[in-house]
Amino acid sequence: MTSRMQREVQEIPEAAERLLSRGASAVATAARALAETDPPYLASIARGSSDHVATYLKYCSEILLGLPVASLGPSVASVYHAPLRLAGSGCIAVSQSGRSPDIVEMVRAARQGHALTIALTNAPDSPLATASVHVLDILAGPEASVAATKTFVNSAIAGLWLLALWRDDGELLAALRALPEALSRAIACDWAELRATLAGHRSLYTLGRGPAFAISNEAALKFKETCQVHAESYSSAELMHGPVSIVGEGFPVLALAAADAAEPLLVDVAERLAEQGAAVFVTSARARKAERLEHVRTGHPLTDPIALIAAFYANVEQLARALGLDPDRPRHLRKVTETL
Amino acid sequence: MTSRMQREVQEIPEAAERLLSRGASAVATAARALAETDPPYLASIARGSSDHVATYLKYCSEILLGLPVASLGPSVASVYHAPLRLAGSGCIAVSQSGRSPDIVEMVRAARQGHALTIALTNAPDSPLATASVHVLDILAGPEASVAATKTFVNSAIAGLWLLALWRDDGELLAALRALPEALSRAIACDWAELRATLAGHRSLYTLGRGPAFAISNEAALKFKETCQVHAESYSSAELMHGPVSIVGEGFPVLALAAADAAEPLLVDVAERLAEQGAAVFVTSARARKAERLEHVRTGHPLTDPIALIAAFYANVEQLARALGLDPDRPRHLRKVTETL
Repeated sequence: MTSRMQREVQEIPEAAERLLSRGASAVATAARALAETDPPYLASIARGSSDHVATYLKYCSEILLGLPVASLGPSVASVYHAPLRLAGSGCIAVSQSGRSPDIVEMVRAARQGHALTIALTNAPDSPLATASVHVLDILAGPEASVAATKTFVNSAIAGLWLLALWRDDGELLAALRALPEALSRAIACDWAELRATLAGHRSLYTLGRGPAFAISNEAALKFKETCQVHAESYSSAELMHGPVSIVGEGFPVLALAAADAAEPLLVDVAERLAEQGAAVFVTSARARKAERLEHVRTGHPLTDPIALIAAFYANVEQLARALGLDPDRPRHLRKVTETL
Repeated sequence: MTSRMQREVQEIPEAAERLLSRGASAVATAARALAETDPPYLASIARGSSDHVATYLKYCSEILLGLPVASLGPSVASVYHAPLRLAGSGCIAVSQSGRSPDIVEMVRAARQGHALTIALTNAPDSPLATASVHVLDILAGPEASVAATKTFVNSAIAGLWLLALWRDDGELLAALRALPEALSRAIACDWAELRATLAGHRSLYTLGRGPAFAISNEAALKFKETCQVHAESYSSAELMHGPVSIVGEGFPVLALAAADAAEPLLVDVAERLAEQGAAVFVTSARARKAERLEHVRTGHPLTDPIALIAAFYANVEQLARALGLDPDRPRHLRKVTETL
């Protein structure tokens, strides 16, 4: 029996290919608008998985362009009715459905406040798209599973592509072009030992750092949604500021490492946790004490996290089924969450 | 037997009074500098509990001044060596010790990049203070407990005071002046039923929204540090985007509500979780199905969260001792965490 989530994870390489072959003109137009506006900072508007895309793009923007990103809580507009001063900023909203009322309201407010608004959405005729100046259709195709997978990947690719064109970064553009092939290999990664270890636990940490921290956030959310396991995400740098206190003997930790400047630091934390008795898994060949997980390198530090999440999705779906849960029917959830 | 943490929680009203009576001139000078600079956005630099202060100030800035705040990951400077474009921004760093190398490095980079840097610290002769243009000594007095309590409260007061003077907000300034008295009542709040319920659980959620979401973040961290319980914080708006999936029968939830525009929405989520069988506690007289906790109202929506965290600190310290743990010796932790 195949789940919808499984089918959609398998569609990731094809969806990425579709975006990269058909999305160029919209991305180029938005990138030119950003270059002309030259905003002093970016702002992001999103919730749930889409907000993890925004966090990923925040690190990419700060590392690639040196441009700080403010994550705006939609409630500042929808609940507190505070008119944010966003004139001259670039404002990126992420929502696969484009239908969350608070996201749409915040984008309208940003546009009225003279921000350059750009929507990343799988629904180019949605209220969010209508409210935004530029619309990047992520072209993921219909997503029926409650748990977002291919829309997460395509939103991340669309956003990174936008930054790469804005910066005119040839190496990154080449790495993006090669992503569908890397994603095919990523979804075949088998994390059987992680799945076997987690089956007996109710609580765990996922770790990341830099752009891969956003991927760790997304992994923790998916563990909750599909496996009903209390996974929480931390930056490995934050871990020692308190959260390490609950890491007892056998506590499971999944460290998602990309091949970037943070890899040695993340692996160092993984090794220390393994030494103190935690059950640590890490996507890095540098690990000695922590268990190494099969992973795919993409040839660019900023595209690696996208391959990491694809590998994760394939494995978390299998874990959900192994636990006797239906990954397509997360408890208490619907596909479109309308927050106010 | 009194713990150091307990003594320091009891010192909160006195420490707040000291800051409010002796800190005025430094805060006024920094507020004038911000008004003259008129930055298009603020940036924050912090880790751990101090980062929760920064999140609190982010909501206060956005609601009070309409000024967006970008939370900067110190690793962008210390690990990725990306030169952030921060010219013209206001940059607020929070660190009680003022000694974390990555925080200091990021502030140096921000100052070199022509940001207006302001440090909130309990150590006015620390490397952080030296690196910053303006220094707000939070005047909390020595803090020996590993778990920050009075330094958190005084950092939050100092930052809010800065925003209130910048905006010249008489009502908020009056509410700040009255805070020490409210804090005395807050630390006497008794949450015996919450403590009794939590004693049997390893996992829980803390919830907040708007400025109180930052307080919920801090509460979750303290549960981990002092009680070795896996508490995770969510905005009540984010909860329905996935995390609600792990809330089964009897799952404990602590909803920290301030008397602000979000209170009815937060209580609504608390009531829905209580209806589906969770063990929900909420600091609001509006709750019917969720259990109401004793709380103190301060007369201003932005100072309420500060009274909430003081009440929480007093109760989490008691819970740690009831669990047979020493709140002064959190497992695996030291007072000053030096991240790179």
